[in-house]
Amino acid sequence: MSVHTDQPATVTVLGLGPMGRALAQAFLAAGLRTTVWNRTPGRDADLVARGAIPASSAEEAVAAGPLTVVCVVNYDASDAVLRQDAVATALKGRTVVNLSADTPERARDTAEWAARHGIRYLDGAIMTPTPTIGTADAVFLHSGPEELYRQHRPVLDTLGGTHTHLGEEIGRAAAYDIALLDIFWTAMAGYVHALAVARAEGVTAGELAPFAQGIATILPPLFTEFAAETDAGTHSGEGNPITSAASTMAHVVHASEAHGIDASLMRVIEGQARRVIALGHGSDGFTRIAEVLGRR
Amino acid sequence: MSVHTDQPATVTVLGLGPMGRALAQAFLAAGLRTTVWNRTPGRDADLVARGAIPASSAEEAVAAGPLTVVCVVNYDASDAVLRQDAVATALKGRTVVNLSADTPERARDTAEWAARHGIRYLDGAIMTPTPTIGTADAVFLHSGPEELYRQHRPVLDTLGGTHTHLGEEIGRAAAYDIALLDIFWTAMAGYVHALAVARAEGVTAGELAPFAQGIATILPPLFTEFAAETDAGTHSGEGNPITSAASTMAHVVHASEAHGIDASLMRVIEGQARRVIALGHGSDGFTRIAEVLGRR
Ligand SMILES: NC(=O)c1ccc[n+]([C@@H]2O[C@H](COP(=O)([O-])OP(=O)(O)OC[C@H]3O[C@@H](n4cnc5c(N)ncnc54)[C@H](OP(=O)(O)O)[C@@H]3O)[C@@H](O)[C@H]2O)c1
Ligand SMILES: NC(=O)c1ccc[n+]([C@@H]2O[C@H](COP(=O)([O-])OP(=O)(O)OC[C@H]3O[C@@H](n4cnc5c(N)ncnc54)[C@H](OP(=O)(O)O)[C@@H]3O)[C@@H](O)[C@H]2O)c1
Repeated sequence: MSVHTDQPATVTVLGLGPMGRALAQAFLAAGLRTTVWNRTPGRDADLVARGAIPASSAEEAVAAGPLTVVCVVNYDASDAVLRQDAVATALKGRTVVNLSADTPERARDTAEWAARHGIRYLDGAIMTPTPTIGTADAVFLHSGPEELYRQHRPVLDTLGGTHTHLGEEIGRAAAYDIALLDIFWTAMAGYVHALAVARAEGVTAGELAPFAQGIATILPPLFTEFAAETDAGTHSGEGNPITSAASTMAHVVHASEAHGIDASLMRVIEGQARRVIALGHGSDGFTRIAEVLGRR
Repeated sequence: MSVHTDQPATVTVLGLGPMGRALAQAFLAAGLRTTVWNRTPGRDADLVARGAIPASSAEEAVAAGPLTVVCVVNYDASDAVLRQDAVATALKGRTVVNLSADTPERARDTAEWAARHGIRYLDGAIMTPTPTIGTADAVFLHSGPEELYRQHRPVLDTLGGTHTHLGEEIGRAAAYDIALLDIFWTAMAGYVHALAVARAEGVTAGELAPFAQGIATILPPLFTEFAAETDAGTHSGEGNPITSAASTMAHVVHASEAHGIDASLMRVIEGQARRVIALGHGSDGFTRIAEVLGRR
């Protein structure tokens, strides 16, 4: 299969939440024959208006072509869709690319299920929000058999952005996804908390935002520096010892709680820093925390 | 006082930790007559080699000129330095700029103390790491009497970067500082945790870092979008409902704990998301969390 043959390439999308719809729209925009299905009916109206083919069941949807992309909330949901006799039978000899998010363990379990049913299986993760899909800003991670990935790459490429095949180990995309979601949601939680604290101090979100952008711009070089420290196990605190960091964390806790704002998040972080200090590493840098997270 | 007179401008730096030293170096590099002092002796050797004037006590240091910049770990420390009779007496009629980090409350308390002693007082915060000091990348926030700020601005400008006067209310710089440190340390804690999870999955920090940079680049536009949602109180979950977010948070918790890695941080965040869902706002976006942080 290739997007370069005379016949338009065919793809099926299972799951029409915000992300599944964005994927289907990008496939349609690229001229692919796109079959769509969603558990709850009625989500396909605008897609059908743009040329998508509605399927009345998941088995009918997957039978429409050689490649099915699944994008539902998690693997409990993708199991509920895929692990039905009629669907597994219809998928035999075909390929599933599961772009739903979940743990590496669930990806490995799904690959085993697929192998038992003669279904070819790739796992993937989407690292950017829905408006990026179909644009250069989209980021997709993939793992599973390289040859299978290469075969479906022309269709996947129509989703735009950067696609990286992280290796044959099927859990690899989910491993990166977990780590990157960890960064993403933690940063977002810090931001939303900061907006609440700022508001209590009479500073609007709009006033704080430009300075928050400034914080976002200092992260990338620090990410690189922290990665090097972590891989080397050095954790230098020369420019900013964790004792100094812990002190500023305490200010955030006190200022939040003085306004009745829950500071559990920063309390956890300060607790990790205090633990590093108690273990005698107070002059080390913040990355030393990575060494105590795994100890009980 | 101005850096444009024939006499070199004079400045005193109290506190020679990593940041105080960086400030003193920038003042020296700009040709200022720079007097330095630190509680623990011996931290001034390389500064003195570059022309700094060592003082044997804080009172001697502040008496050297009209402007003293204090940069110590927090206001317990700056109180320990400044609130001594000899120091307060020597500071009478002079100006203190306190660039140590702490809460808005402590800044207000220090301003009151300064007023009682006839000391002119500005409060400030430094938002970027030590290597930025003296470069265009440095970011300084200031608050307090505008006229006083304007008067000392030529000296402060020699520290490089961007200086913003946030208003006359003395606690304002600390309020922004708290909120921005909240974002900074929370993001960093997420990153260090992600490195630990990745390592447990066989992914090195160096392998994860380029993708982490990708996450950092999607934050600025989301910060802007989230600020608008928060100020408007809309919290749209159209592109990404908090039920979907909570599911991915649960994956991070499970994958971490499966490797024996503490997931308290993400447990707090997931808990906040679950609380929003339990309150009936599951189809809202993540910013809705700001509304529940303040409720008991
Ligand atoms: N939105 C984003 O910005 C974004 C970014 C990166 C990655 N992702 C990932 O993309 C995936 C899809 O996300 P989304 O934004 O589309 O929203 P979502 O709320 O995570 O998923 C909604 C989809 O899951 C389906 N679903 C839920 N439970 C189901 C079940 N038991 N059986 C069958 N279908 C079920 C829904 O069907 P119904 O309509 O029938 O409920 C709907 O199609 C998620 O894994 C998410 O983490 C999303
Ligand atoms: N480093 C950074 O990247 C950075 C970035 C932005 C803002 N800041 C802020 O800048 C300030 C200074 O930070 P830093 O990096 O220089 O390191 P720090 O560890 O926060 O502060 C060290 C300085 O505080 C002094 N100090 C501590 N307790 C004292 C006390 N009871 N009495 C007198 N002096 C005391 C130390 O003196 P001794 O040598 O005698 O212990 C030393 O001069 C902090 O508020 C920090 O949050 C730092």
